[in-house]
Amino acid sequence: MTMKEKWMLSWLDSDIPQGVGGRREERRKMNGNGMNYAPKGKPQPVVGSGEFVIAAVALDHGHIYGMCNGLTEAGATLKWVYDPDPEKVKAFLRAFPQAQPAESEEQILQDPEVKLVCGAAVTSLRCALGLRVMDAGKDYFTDKAPFTTLEQIEAAREKIRKTGRKYMVYYSERIHVEAAVYAGWLIEQGAIGTPIHVDGFGPHRIGNPHSRPDWFFEKEKYGGILCDIGSHQIEQFLFYCNEKDAKIQYSQVGNYAHPDYPELEDFGEAVLLGANGGTQHFRVDWFTPDGLSTWGGRKNLYSWHRRLY
Amino acid sequence: MTMKEKWMLSWLDSDIPQGVGGRREERRKMNGNGMNYAPKGKPQPVVGSGEFVIAAVALDHGHIYGMCNGLTEAGATLKWVYDPDPEKVKAFLRAFPQAQPAESEEQILQDPEVKLVCGAAVTSLRCALGLRVMDAGKDYFTDKAPFTTLEQIEAAREKIRKTGRKYMVYYSERIHVEAAVYAGWLIEQGAIGTPIHVDGFGPHRIGNPHSRPDWFFEKEKYGGILCDIGSHQIEQFLFYCNEKDAKIQYSQVGNYAHPDYPELEDFGEAVLLGANGGTQHFRVDWFTPDGLSTWGGRKNLYSWHRRLY
Repeated sequence: MTMKEKWMLSWLDSDIPQGVGGRREERRKMNGNGMNYAPKGKPQPVVGSGEFVIAAVALDHGHIYGMCNGLTEAGATLKWVYDPDPEKVKAFLRAFPQAQPAESEEQILQDPEVKLVCGAAVTSLRCALGLRVMDAGKDYFTDKAPFTTLEQIEAAREKIRKTGRKYMVYYSERIHVEAAVYAGWLIEQGAIGTPIHVDGFGPHRIGNPHSRPDWFFEKEKYGGILCDIGSHQIEQFLFYCNEKDAKIQYSQVGNYAHPDYPELEDFGEAVLLGANGGTQHFRVDWFTPDGLSTWGGRKNLYSWHRRLY
Repeated sequence: MTMKEKWMLSWLDSDIPQGVGGRREERRKMNGNGMNYAPKGKPQPVVGSGEFVIAAVALDHGHIYGMCNGLTEAGATLKWVYDPDPEKVKAFLRAFPQAQPAESEEQILQDPEVKLVCGAAVTSLRCALGLRVMDAGKDYFTDKAPFTTLEQIEAAREKIRKTGRKYMVYYSERIHVEAAVYAGWLIEQGAIGTPIHVDGFGPHRIGNPHSRPDWFFEKEKYGGILCDIGSHQIEQFLFYCNEKDAKIQYSQVGNYAHPDYPELEDFGEAVLLGANGGTQHFRVDWFTPDGLSTWGGRKNLYSWHRRLY
């Protein structure tokens, strides 16, 4: 956690307060839902060309674009891309023409030049990819949520201990949003005292469900709403309240309005108690109305939720 | 509950949306904390002079002023006031010179003209006063929280069954605040769909603790923060989500920053599940910074809480 935080902050803090978050025009281009929202920032390289070579493997979630934007803006050299679906690779190469399509994941893992592999696999497969990446002696940067089971977390910890590699997570709602980065900076400066409670809101818009892949609606694969979206909120709480550990004291989830997708949880909330005494509540849902082009936890506070049936 | 709601709404709804809440100048006059905040509205009598005679008994909390403002603006005739403390009576008579100081509570209870007694006693004594009022054949209008124990609730229910009188509560944060009344009106009109979750925030400012009476800091008397402040939030949830019953699924309280007042809970939160499927989280606290002249749950959403030590 600490290493990841330091790495992320060193990557981001030169942009404060000018901002690394999505530009307004980028937001307008959002393709109906937040799945393809990929913030672009001003390039501010912290390494020279060719000095930090990366590859993208597994393009199942559109977050891979934001991840590669951030990394290349920081100076990373994007050498490879691989996904078993040639259509996804083709689309990716339009955004990142500098990358070469690899013939297999193995080809990338065997390239000694590659220092980091970033991926946005189906959530339940993210850990397995990370284990392979670390076994190949490379660091791993995955879309959130990074795990769907406790067994996966333990496997990743064990692998980190054995290989010394990093398993890092793209918690975009904090590390790729201007206001969230700025809030962390204010806290660090002591400008607002010691936070004792964070209430996090993660309203999301489902948009057209048919535009989303099947795995998005299968709980075993996406991990449930508290894992899928709530992991953002929990990470923010831990960071802002400087908590190293916390216990989930209570949680509840529901499917209020999506009977066609019985495994989709469209509402969830939880209360946490941190080891250091901080507390958190968060609420996440899929009830952002159509037409409101926002996503994430900081923009939609007093939304009144509408039942769709 | 239903009778109370109807009565309150008939009292208030002619004022929508012009507003019954506190005027800005009134807010500026707030005496350091919310305890003495007494909203004034435009008089809109619904009864003729002398038709609905009331009395004020027990002036322990400043809310009694807002209660009497609302009642007299609606046409009630304020005939009597009684409190064992002559200073409190003197101050009250300055605001309501039309009232006569009674020699005892008994004198008021025996007056057949009096139809309703309103009171803002020490919280733990509110029920006992209500039982005496109803025994005297009058309706009761108490400051919130209306009870501090489950036994008191049962006693009041039993008395209501026996006497047919009303035990009504001044939930000022909803019934005496423009935005809150308007929100209820919007929901009633179907303007925002069916609410499935209410998140309520009740940040409060402690101000100068020495300006508050001792009972304010004794848990047996004020009932704890979830009772004292949280009763507002729960009432709002029940009303806005049209829930007749709900279960408290989880709650936690703490004293983070007031070691001199060990029985003061300066932080609390709870999660509720309604019988009809609605859900609520609320957070209440005494961390509104000095100098911010707001109170209540709707104005202070992303406050960052400051530890005072």
